[in-house]
Amino acid sequence: WRRSSHCAGQTLDISGIYPPIVTPFTQKGEVDYQSLYKNLQKYNNIPFKGLVVQGSNGEYPYLSTEERIEVVRRVKQALPKAKLLMAGSGCESTKATIQMSENMASAGADCLLVVTPCFYHGRMDGSALIHHYIQVADSSPVPIVLYNVPASTFLDLPVSAVIELSQHPNIIGIKDSGGDITRIGLIVHKTRSQDFQVLAGSAGFLMASYTVGAVGGVCALANVLGQEVCELAQLCTSGEWDKARKLQYRLIEPNIAVTRKFGIPALKQAMEWFGYHGGVCRSPLQPLSEVQLKQLHTDFSSNGWL
Amino acid sequence: WRRSSHCAGQTLDISGIYPPIVTPFTQKGEVDYQSLYKNLQKYNNIPFKGLVVQGSNGEYPYLSTEERIEVVRRVKQALPKAKLLMAGSGCESTKATIQMSENMASAGADCLLVVTPCFYHGRMDGSALIHHYIQVADSSPVPIVLYNVPASTFLDLPVSAVIELSQHPNIIGIKDSGGDITRIGLIVHKTRSQDFQVLAGSAGFLMASYTVGAVGGVCALANVLGQEVCELAQLCTSGEWDKARKLQYRLIEPNIAVTRKFGIPALKQAMEWFGYHGGVCRSPLQPLSEVQLKQLHTDFSSNGWL
Amino acid sequence: WRRSSHCAGQTLDISGIYPPIVTPFTQKGEVDYQSLYKNLQKYNNIPFKGLVVQGSNGEYPYLSTEERIEVVRRVKQALPKAKLLMAGSGCESTKATIQMSENMASAGADCLLVVTPCFYHGRMDGSALIHHYIQVADSSPVPIVLYNVPASTFLDLPVSAVIELSQHPNIIGIKDSGGDITRIGLIVHKTRSQDFQVLAGSAGFLMASYTVGAVGGVCALANVLGQEVCELAQLCTSGEWDKARKLQYRLIEPNIAVTRKFGIPALKQAMEWFGYHGGVCRSPLQPLSEVQLKQLHTDFSSNGWL
Amino acid sequence: WRRSSHCAGQTLDISGIYPPIVTPFTQKGEVDYQSLYKNLQKYNNIPFKGLVVQGSNGEYPYLSTEERIEVVRRVKQALPKAKLLMAGSGCESTKATIQMSENMASAGADCLLVVTPCFYHGRMDGSALIHHYIQVADSSPVPIVLYNVPASTFLDLPVSAVIELSQHPNIIGIKDSGGDITRIGLIVHKTRSQDFQVLAGSAGFLMASYTVGAVGGVCALANVLGQEVCELAQLCTSGEWDKARKLQYRLIEPNIAVTRKFGIPALKQAMEWFGYHGGVCRSPLQPLSEVQLKQLHTDFSSNGWL
Repeated sequence: WRRSSHCAGQTLDISGIYPPIVTPFTQKGEVDYQSLYKNLQKYNNIPFKGLVVQGSNGEYPYLSTEERIEVVRRVKQALPKAKLLMAGSGCESTKATIQMSENMASAGADCLLVVTPCFYHGRMDGSALIHHYIQVADSSPVPIVLYNVPASTFLDLPVSAVIELSQHPNIIGIKDSGGDITRIGLIVHKTRSQDFQVLAGSAGFLMASYTVGAVGGVCALANVLGQEVCELAQLCTSGEWDKARKLQYRLIEPNIAVTRKFGIPALKQAMEWFGYHGGVCRSPLQPLSEVQLKQLHTDFSSNGWL
Repeated sequence: WRRSSHCAGQTLDISGIYPPIVTPFTQKGEVDYQSLYKNLQKYNNIPFKGLVVQGSNGEYPYLSTEERIEVVRRVKQALPKAKLLMAGSGCESTKATIQMSENMASAGADCLLVVTPCFYHGRMDGSALIHHYIQVADSSPVPIVLYNVPASTFLDLPVSAVIELSQHPNIIGIKDSGGDITRIGLIVHKTRSQDFQVLAGSAGFLMASYTVGAVGGVCALANVLGQEVCELAQLCTSGEWDKARKLQYRLIEPNIAVTRKFGIPALKQAMEWFGYHGGVCRSPLQPLSEVQLKQLHTDFSSNGWL
Repeated sequence: WRRSSHCAGQTLDISGIYPPIVTPFTQKGEVDYQSLYKNLQKYNNIPFKGLVVQGSNGEYPYLSTEERIEVVRRVKQALPKAKLLMAGSGCESTKATIQMSENMASAGADCLLVVTPCFYHGRMDGSALIHHYIQVADSSPVPIVLYNVPASTFLDLPVSAVIELSQHPNIIGIKDSGGDITRIGLIVHKTRSQDFQVLAGSAGFLMASYTVGAVGGVCALANVLGQEVCELAQLCTSGEWDKARKLQYRLIEPNIAVTRKFGIPALKQAMEWFGYHGGVCRSPLQPLSEVQLKQLHTDFSSNGWL
Repeated sequence: WRRSSHCAGQTLDISGIYPPIVTPFTQKGEVDYQSLYKNLQKYNNIPFKGLVVQGSNGEYPYLSTEERIEVVRRVKQALPKAKLLMAGSGCESTKATIQMSENMASAGADCLLVVTPCFYHGRMDGSALIHHYIQVADSSPVPIVLYNVPASTFLDLPVSAVIELSQHPNIIGIKDSGGDITRIGLIVHKTRSQDFQVLAGSAGFLMASYTVGAVGGVCALANVLGQEVCELAQLCTSGEWDKARKLQYRLIEPNIAVTRKFGIPALKQAMEWFGYHGGVCRSPLQPLSEVQLKQLHTDFSSNGWL
């Protein structure tokens, strides 16, 4: 492998904010590339470091192999060169992950976000996961970012495995969505001698993650309130903690609403309210009920966003 | 849809024992159809009702879409006409599940085992799962068997959803692998006015399941001790409970060993000991350690099987 | 210790059905011994093997040390000599459990039900629990019954620990409320060379437990439908499985309603409907809402009990 | 009730660091008041805000009612007047908690830490917990601090319940040990209009908690590294975040070691290494194995503390 297609001779810097973009669908359930394109146009005006394509908010488990690659290709075409494209290439098998990683790199991904395989979770101990990631990193043409999302996978990539994997030259960081701030601090602490960067996986603990040494975040809420999430990041990096705290407070409830409380249907609905194209999810994800819609609206309005 | 390709005008009877067959791989990691064929030849001598292709023991999350269909086609070719081919067609999205169901039916599946989608588990409530299954059942050319496997999916298909789905003419039963015997009894009780059959999902609670009204089982252990599992079923259906109990006892530890204790690598290893072709798993599933191998051996030998 | 105060020279036989009796309270929140006495009078007409005093349905965590002992004493006074008094003496510390065991034995308990300590659950491995139980059994003047209730303790007493403890001459059995029928079968299988008896901890899996070798049950529902639960046990021991199955079915939903669905407030309410004294629970247990009351009623009436 | 016995007419300020002190035992298993006294003498030289007596690290579930009160009395005698005594008065029943609260207040507690009751966790919803806390707070002669410790109780006091309870004039704060920094931020945010203070329940997320608005911590590790934990707090309150971060890093592994990894036996062992009296735990808590002792030592030494 080569260290990075992006910056030969040095490690890719992934610090900053990324929206894990959603995948809009047409009424007939096809990927709606036109709506996707319009969203990307709007995102170009926000100081994101880049975009994550096919994090869990991208409904990637509902996309075919071909769709997953095509979405990456289309996003690459619309993305300014200065912005990073981090693509989610994780599959359950090592073999499929390697293949998907190659295809996504060919389609334009600057680096790859690789979720822990989890179906046979009883066998997915540190040793198996290390084995998996090393094979993927060894063969990937672009750098790998580990992806820990226990709310979806019911697995926590052990900290000891993260430390070991951080030594691999083609593994450059981790996105941790678990929200365990002690763990995030420990990962930063134990990998500080490596070129290894930690991204918070949610806007709810973004400020706290910065304080313990994270360098950015992949935040579902950034699909809706991108400018505000970037502002929070900027306040953190410039040390304006009092202002940061006040902004962080106002982002927690909207963030919970579009993630663990109501999920992607809420994220897509909120995008509509803020001028983006969200639309429907693929089945079996269902639209929100009237009651849920009202609660979602309140979670934004009571914090001054609607 | 039509009620059944197998028995026009009446419901398919799925009572009996099925091994959820493993997928052998060559040294290079390709599906080893020759070894698969040899296993099938041996299984033909055992009074199985049929085979389950691509239950969780078939490593289906590690197979490509094409491989999943091709394995069904090959098994169909080797299977005597009298035996049922139940194929696992579940995918995360409704759309992919419908497509896979059609393809597997075309490849020869007599009925389809459809696992609960689970990735966005926080949104997979009864309503979403009912919606999913009804769409799949409406479009499937062959009957559907629900598949509840909480150890892998971290979801329990609610009993109320099972009851509602049991009324659909193209949903003919459920394989329940959770081992909650109260739940299994309740499902039998509440669906008894429907043409709906319940299969135990593991040999560990097979006898207990028969006593509360189940009519068969899909048992990983039947890949290794197929004759014995069929004998247990026969003792249950003929009411020889004392003999059944003694046999059931001796199957519990081997069953735990090849399922939740050591998983598919153990199942494949035990198959080798009993004259079948097991072989390696696809990565990230790792082989057993020496210590684990010894424990596995003891779990069989201490019960008189080795 | 002596093997048993009940039957010198031989092990106490605990086979049969026990209601884990509730503790009625007066309007002022004191133990209502008069109502308790009236319930006991009615229970005397039912072929129970005995009573369990201060299982989890007895609200024992809400009773003072003195109340716990006094309730045992009062029940003993009202209980016919032929019936066993099994008293729950488990506390978090070994020391307190030993003391409580002595006091309850003095107050008339024939044997003691000792729940797994669980507060520091991360440290309560098999070794710690074995150590605990051996100390308690060594010092107890009456036999000990292990008590596994993972829904309350979030702990499963490991099967290997049960096997080891079954060899202690003063440990005569286990009440297992987890509902894992595979586990119950395995425990019977692995302890069959010992004087060790297994009791199902709930009416929902009572029949299945009998089929795998359990000899009785401690069933919350027996507080309400005592005659019917005893009839189910009788049908099981006499091998009338078809009749047993039909009765078992009708008990599942009422049982779930008074246990995991609505808990002790529902159990006490249902007792009122069937002529017993249930009454209020101690705070923080709250009464059922109107909606819950209706559901509870339906769970009984739809199965022909009301 | 009166707002506070400490500061008539105004709310007690609980900001600062507290060790949740351990309870030393003699070889015979009695409370070792002499060793306790010696520990307290050393703690007097550390700028703690006060002490927590009978948090979960005090083995309170293993103390009798009389011991719990006597320990509070003895600590009060040894504590300088300027320091706060926060005593854990939580019991499972509301009635016992009220009684214990009165007794501990009489014994000298300045405020009371009341853990969520949890045994019947299926019934402990927000409504039941609010009811419990309001009754306790209404009757308590000293202010109440809520105590959320999901690792022990398997319950999270809902944020909505915390918000409602924060309006009660005799409920002045919460100790949250869950480590969910998003939740901690949200609680601060939603209770900021009340006299309500938030304390982090562990040293592992102390710095992060300060950044989102917590005002102190109750930290097991402060029993061992009290000066250092106080220094971390001071760096946070004075805004020296870079220094704080470096110190925080070095505290994470020792903290994990004496809490969720090895528990109280490790905490007491580490205390011995640092000149305090730790000693044995009451059974069923077992001493560490040799291997565990070495790991514990490494968790301190590799961070420069031994």
